[in-house]
Amino acid sequence: MPKLRISDAEYLRRRATILDRLSDRGVSALVLFSPNNVGYFGRFAFAPTERPIAYFFTRDTSVLLVPHLEIEHAEEFALVDKVVTYPEYPGERHPMEFLKDQLIDAGLQTATIGVDSDGYGRIYGYRGPRVSELLPDAKVETVQDDVEYLQMVNTEEELEIIRESCKWGNLAHQLLQEYSRVGEIESSIAARASYDASQVMVKELGEEYRAFGFGRNGAYSGFRGQVGKASALPHALSNNAALQPGDALVTYAGAPIWGYDSELERSMIMGEPSAKQVEYFNHMFNAQTIALNAIKPGIPCSEVDRQVRQYFTENGLLDNWRHHTGHAKSMLIHEAPFLDIGDHRILEVGMVFTVEPGVYVPDFAGFRHSDTVAVTETGIEFLTFYPRDLESLIIPL
Amino acid sequence: MPKLRISDAEYLRRRATILDRLSDRGVSALVLFSPNNVGYFGRFAFAPTERPIAYFFTRDTSVLLVPHLEIEHAEEFALVDKVVTYPEYPGERHPMEFLKDQLIDAGLQTATIGVDSDGYGRIYGYRGPRVSELLPDAKVETVQDDVEYLQMVNTEEELEIIRESCKWGNLAHQLLQEYSRVGEIESSIAARASYDASQVMVKELGEEYRAFGFGRNGAYSGFRGQVGKASALPHALSNNAALQPGDALVTYAGAPIWGYDSELERSMIMGEPSAKQVEYFNHMFNAQTIALNAIKPGIPCSEVDRQVRQYFTENGLLDNWRHHTGHAKSMLIHEAPFLDIGDHRILEVGMVFTVEPGVYVPDFAGFRHSDTVAVTETGIEFLTFYPRDLESLIIPL
Repeated sequence: MPKLRISDAEYLRRRATILDRLSDRGVSALVLFSPNNVGYFGRFAFAPTERPIAYFFTRDTSVLLVPHLEIEHAEEFALVDKVVTYPEYPGERHPMEFLKDQLIDAGLQTATIGVDSDGYGRIYGYRGPRVSELLPDAKVETVQDDVEYLQMVNTEEELEIIRESCKWGNLAHQLLQEYSRVGEIESSIAARASYDASQVMVKELGEEYRAFGFGRNGAYSGFRGQVGKASALPHALSNNAALQPGDALVTYAGAPIWGYDSELERSMIMGEPSAKQVEYFNHMFNAQTIALNAIKPGIPCSEVDRQVRQYFTENGLLDNWRHHTGHAKSMLIHEAPFLDIGDHRILEVGMVFTVEPGVYVPDFAGFRHSDTVAVTETGIEFLTFYPRDLESLIIPL
Repeated sequence: MPKLRISDAEYLRRRATILDRLSDRGVSALVLFSPNNVGYFGRFAFAPTERPIAYFFTRDTSVLLVPHLEIEHAEEFALVDKVVTYPEYPGERHPMEFLKDQLIDAGLQTATIGVDSDGYGRIYGYRGPRVSELLPDAKVETVQDDVEYLQMVNTEEELEIIRESCKWGNLAHQLLQEYSRVGEIESSIAARASYDASQVMVKELGEEYRAFGFGRNGAYSGFRGQVGKASALPHALSNNAALQPGDALVTYAGAPIWGYDSELERSMIMGEPSAKQVEYFNHMFNAQTIALNAIKPGIPCSEVDRQVRQYFTENGLLDNWRHHTGHAKSMLIHEAPFLDIGDHRILEVGMVFTVEPGVYVPDFAGFRHSDTVAVTETGIEFLTFYPRDLESLIIPL
């Protein structure tokens, strides 16, 4: 049975590590609002709404503030010392007043406090004060850069879960390919493949399995609208194209497992590819190979993208270039750092990236593979493992 | 064939209306970053990533700034005067510098500019300057309250689309109920019902249909983890419970259509309900009926919630109360205003609300119906139309 969950020890280590790193700036507590950060440090996944949720911790204690509707859910799942609730938002007393009470109880009235953002934001109609307004005598510093940096470098526990995610994304993609037949509707193929893969996954992983995150369910795969000519639009977002002979397709697949996910994308062709399709597929394949070979610890992210762009330039493909080579990937859809000519952060062992340069030919077709890879001492470990070669990705008519 | 899309005239009217309303504050342009606002005024739906998208308009012009990867997509779909692109984020020149160029070109260097937020936010690792930093001589005012107010009051065109959404959410829920059998896994039932309903919907609505929004596909229904004892957790988010005889279930269903959605939720029971289940179901039913009867134009939102809370108090149910009565609903999951004791905004004709007081009995079960209703001159129009009575919601074993 694979290990699906981050250990309690690792959650505690994360808190200690970030406080250690911020100690020279005098930070003695972190207050976090983003669902991803609350999950990462506090092991609580929730549906974000107009009702703010806040999680704070010091070296001595950790407190999760939730609306009353989340009380049993938080008490069962969150790895925190104390769950406190407020009745409702907007309610008769603002939820942030309850947070203020807790921060004062924890002795933080004049402390230096790190925040991921200075307040809950303005989502779904929420309005409320900043932390710096709640505690005017405290020093409030945004430390989201530091939090993101901690999240960028994955531990072996995290990599294990991402590998597991790749397995089930792979199954969802296999089924997507199998169900892709002329006349079938993109969203129907996607739903069927996602459903069938999820059934197998949930059965196999058993009661321990959770997606861990709002709107996340089981394994999934689909096309995002990149069907036929629309495959030239990297984020086309259509829903009802019927597959036709000769269509170029760009797919996606993944599987959320306890908050982690992976990204697998493939160019596929409905029937024998035309010479022009082969030509651009090969350019895409070559560009991805260049990026995969370039990644190793110690070089800047920008260097990977620079080599890919050089390939585009040398092969007269600048009109077909639409986006950078990839992005970090573990918990969110996209994460920093970016394999981008403007991102000079240094690759480190344990970082996980998508590698996905795309070649787009307007009014004809688009071509993109995306693989998820981990940076190792010597280069990369492929976490996704679906065939990359054209022959394997031709769908017989 | 139902009308599925907002007319071009209505998009233009929205822009004129908001500029009219803000004219007394001297605002001559709006700069918008939130995907929902860009869609609402500019008719462009996109996958939000680290790459910022900005849309601005004045009385004379309207400009959409997108990353290069969205160029053909934006040119095909957005209802704007001009689409401009930047290469990539972070790229060699920051995307916000391209926005600055456009704002200056439009003569806004010293204007009063309304923004939904002062910059793109910090999502997916994005970092960048505020609008007020780009144009230090301009006066930048947050006008998100005004934008939200415009969005709260739905026109007949909007109501038509929400009614259509309710039809397909209803089908997805019918299938969910039909497929709910002992031993079946919650996420599998949900996927199958969503898949089957979507197939019918996409076929029926034809090429005109689009979900219009990232991560939105066809019609959907499911349980959100509210199965058996876990139904007592309003946002349980589990994925793999198998239905058992005697389980209380709380469901959800909807269908995104060109950016609009609806909310339908039902309490269901697996087999003959126990006396205790009937008792709490009836309390939930009564509370919802009180709210439905209370809604009419001219009274404050808080009054509806006050009447519901009074029912909880009078019936000794305060331990079973977890959340307010409802929220506005048209484009997002939750929207302002809220049917909440602390929200004193006045109900107006054209507002659309979910009505969903819930009764939760820890370690036993939860009970909640949610209906989507429009405020009319005389009270409400039911937009959802699924049976509410217990008899219809008992699933034979």
